[in-house]
Amino acid sequence: MEITIDRNSRTPIYRQIVDRIHEMITSGALPPGFSLPPERRLADALGVNRTTVLTAYRDLKGTGLIDAHVGRGTIVAEQSSATIERSTDSSPLAWSQLFRDRASRTRDPLIRDLLELTERPDVIVLSAGLPAPEHLPHELLGELTTELVRDIGPALIQYGPTEGLSSLRRSLSRWLLTRGHRTSPADLMILSGSQQGLDLTARVFLDPGDTVVVEAPTYIGALEVFRTARVRLLEVPTDAEGMRTDVLADLLERHRPKLIYTLPTFQNPSGTVMSLERRRHLLELAIRHRVPVLEDDPYGELRYSGEPIPSLKALDRTGHVIHLSTFSKTLMPGLRIGYMIAPRPAMQQFVLAKQTIDLHSNTLGQWILDRILRNDLLEPRLAVLRKVYASRRDALETALAAHRDVDISWKSPAGGFYLWCKLPRSVERTRLVASAASAGVSFLPGWTSFAEEPDENFVRLSFSFADEKQLEEGANRFAIAVQHAASSTRKAVQQETGTPTIV
Amino acid sequence: MEITIDRNSRTPIYRQIVDRIHEMITSGALPPGFSLPPERRLADALGVNRTTVLTAYRDLKGTGLIDAHVGRGTIVAEQSSATIERSTDSSPLAWSQLFRDRASRTRDPLIRDLLELTERPDVIVLSAGLPAPEHLPHELLGELTTELVRDIGPALIQYGPTEGLSSLRRSLSRWLLTRGHRTSPADLMILSGSQQGLDLTARVFLDPGDTVVVEAPTYIGALEVFRTARVRLLEVPTDAEGMRTDVLADLLERHRPKLIYTLPTFQNPSGTVMSLERRRHLLELAIRHRVPVLEDDPYGELRYSGEPIPSLKALDRTGHVIHLSTFSKTLMPGLRIGYMIAPRPAMQQFVLAKQTIDLHSNTLGQWILDRILRNDLLEPRLAVLRKVYASRRDALETALAAHRDVDISWKSPAGGFYLWCKLPRSVERTRLVASAASAGVSFLPGWTSFAEEPDENFVRLSFSFADEKQLEEGANRFAIAVQHAASSTRKAVQQETGTPTIV
Repeated sequence: MEITIDRNSRTPIYRQIVDRIHEMITSGALPPGFSLPPERRLADALGVNRTTVLTAYRDLKGTGLIDAHVGRGTIVAEQSSATIERSTDSSPLAWSQLFRDRASRTRDPLIRDLLELTERPDVIVLSAGLPAPEHLPHELLGELTTELVRDIGPALIQYGPTEGLSSLRRSLSRWLLTRGHRTSPADLMILSGSQQGLDLTARVFLDPGDTVVVEAPTYIGALEVFRTARVRLLEVPTDAEGMRTDVLADLLERHRPKLIYTLPTFQNPSGTVMSLERRRHLLELAIRHRVPVLEDDPYGELRYSGEPIPSLKALDRTGHVIHLSTFSKTLMPGLRIGYMIAPRPAMQQFVLAKQTIDLHSNTLGQWILDRILRNDLLEPRLAVLRKVYASRRDALETALAAHRDVDISWKSPAGGFYLWCKLPRSVERTRLVASAASAGVSFLPGWTSFAEEPDENFVRLSFSFADEKQLEEGANRFAIAVQHAASSTRKAVQQETGTPTIV
Repeated sequence: MEITIDRNSRTPIYRQIVDRIHEMITSGALPPGFSLPPERRLADALGVNRTTVLTAYRDLKGTGLIDAHVGRGTIVAEQSSATIERSTDSSPLAWSQLFRDRASRTRDPLIRDLLELTERPDVIVLSAGLPAPEHLPHELLGELTTELVRDIGPALIQYGPTEGLSSLRRSLSRWLLTRGHRTSPADLMILSGSQQGLDLTARVFLDPGDTVVVEAPTYIGALEVFRTARVRLLEVPTDAEGMRTDVLADLLERHRPKLIYTLPTFQNPSGTVMSLERRRHLLELAIRHRVPVLEDDPYGELRYSGEPIPSLKALDRTGHVIHLSTFSKTLMPGLRIGYMIAPRPAMQQFVLAKQTIDLHSNTLGQWILDRILRNDLLEPRLAVLRKVYASRRDALETALAAHRDVDISWKSPAGGFYLWCKLPRSVERTRLVASAASAGVSFLPGWTSFAEEPDENFVRLSFSFADEKQLEEGANRFAIAVQHAASSTRKAVQQETGTPTIV
């Protein structure tokens, strides 16, 4: 592969790399399936920063010419746009010109790449928020389905109401009472996973140019929804007590956001819990400034120590809070069933939006959850899961702490799925991705969880999916990857003065 | 309830009605649950056209102040926006001011109302495209789930890939070969029902102000998606051979649409099949004008007479067609599993969009379909369903034809779920909704299926859900409703000169 860089050109270096690779793919010089050099090697060979090559590869990935996957190399796409357009000479349809305005489309395949790991047994997954497979109740699913086939009959798989089955909304509202939520079934809508609640909120509330307040860091799936909605994101920092509501107060004086988005309990990714005092302060601010609060609470039931704190929705006396939650972390993620609690005027709009998005959420999954709630099967399960995940958290912490030579620090979380770890700035982030991939361990790079480029160097390590043995091995692999990324970063800096070259 | 109309006012009459009812609800004069008079009675009492009252009620429904449901009356909403805002004096959150621009939101609860009928045993449902409950394979579902629990284990309910399970995409691509679709698994994405494919298409392709070509009539769920995307809709008329491609040719000379949306096979609602010649012409036009075609094909397998015609996608040699289909009409709608076949450059964008919308479609449903395809259970089932629905079609046609005194005409469809019936213009459409509701039968008003107000008077009657006995009774009820609406329309016209009044 021949690439020559012209350092005197006004074309940025990453752009020169993009153009040259693009040319070689469309000309057929690089055939589908061809492995591109790892970012590190190409950067070393060209004498440029790794970030430059990373940017070029991301750009090419965006055009569909190359594919890159967690733990695999970067290859020329099997049937890249260019290949297709060439193969249909009679009628080239220039798809890329037909897509809508780039800013309105999702561009980062991060979530997709994380989910793809569910079909990859060769990598130790510390990246994704997947529940422990050994503790998924598939046998219970079998038993309940047999019961339901007998008791419910064809309605089990018929179309159902957009809001969700009446039966589930009744059983759910009864269960929610035990969590301090006084809701009637009409305050509830069943979602196709709580991710859908984020998307619905964007659809109902957000016009391009609106402002949304998010925590720094925050959930990557929410960031992507908000970005696609083309809103302006205002970050509020978090500390050990969660969102800094003093900073929020200042922001609300100066801006008029459409929405405040928060994950107050076992925050994803930081693991922090917003204190009761902060929760009250947040609600006061929302009331004073007339801003609705979107509370995302997938992990609230998974507390391993300390006393539960009421959710924002449970504290909400004035109808300012829209609450999202899910059974994906505690029961069966594959059913894709979450729920929303919302004030009626908002709920009406959410229902209208959902009907055209997917008509309704799958009924079989709803009946299964209904049966689990009615037969009181959730609580004993939660008790088991809290023990399982507390042990896994401890196992990962112990294994990481054993690597005294590696500079990784974190605050032990009282619940949830994640360790939020700080690394030295000297660890170059794109190099860490590559070295972890070669070591056979996946993690979530911390910068993906910020609306704006963070100053510090974080990674999120999940302890939910891998078992204790795998976590130990995963921690070892990760520690090696960090060491490698740190040391080779120093080497790379020395080489940055290298000359243009042919790889 | 006191309403006075000022005919000399510059405020339109419907608006005067809206304002007065709004005032009475927010002041508490009309409490939650209060039944508003039927449109007919209020119109008669005020001496105005029923359409005027219908418009006023729709407007009030849009604000959440009143609720109206198929087969029920119109009532003051249990907890209307106004009530909520009053009950939280300390902090009125004016939700309606926070929602996004009205044009970007879905406003018509039609689909939701149709789906709600799945929980209403008292109405004979001729309105919705629900499959026959007696023939839903719930027992098969039970057996397959038991097998899958044993064979697949926890992966049955774990998170899965955004594109869909590899296993299902492989079995689906093999099955599609038998339908003339040469696809690899990478050309397929599993959807949460084919409705999601419409929504994804809007997300990936449509900016406000774009133009989309649709058939007249067309599927209501697509119209609602396109309207929410704020595109301009261009209608192409249909005849016995489907979309009039000669008219399309003219349109494409004058406009530059982003997309052509078509349901070529057993079109919803008209039941027509696009001829092979028209299909070829449509593809030629798409190639010449470089416009992608969105082919929606939920009913293609349900042919009761005549020979199958290849789908547009099967005829597509140049990668211009995006194809949507589903197993909701033939297997289990409640699983919410559909699929998309798309050219790679478009597919990449669809996957990126889907990851943030619902992460992926439910895995349990995907495994069940995978097993059905692998065990060759679909074909024998289709054979049964074709007989069942052909008999139901015949039963409805026979029952309607028996009412010689009622002027209803239709062309017998060779497949699908619907009779598309023409009624005399003298049958007032809003009155027909009311008289059918009192008679205990539901239907889909034809005007809902057009992008622009149609000249003629159509209704869509579904023969899929009700059994033959119910269809006969449903046809009788519907015929009575038509007679009533026709005769009372004449009376109403005479009364239109009535004076302002107090009801």
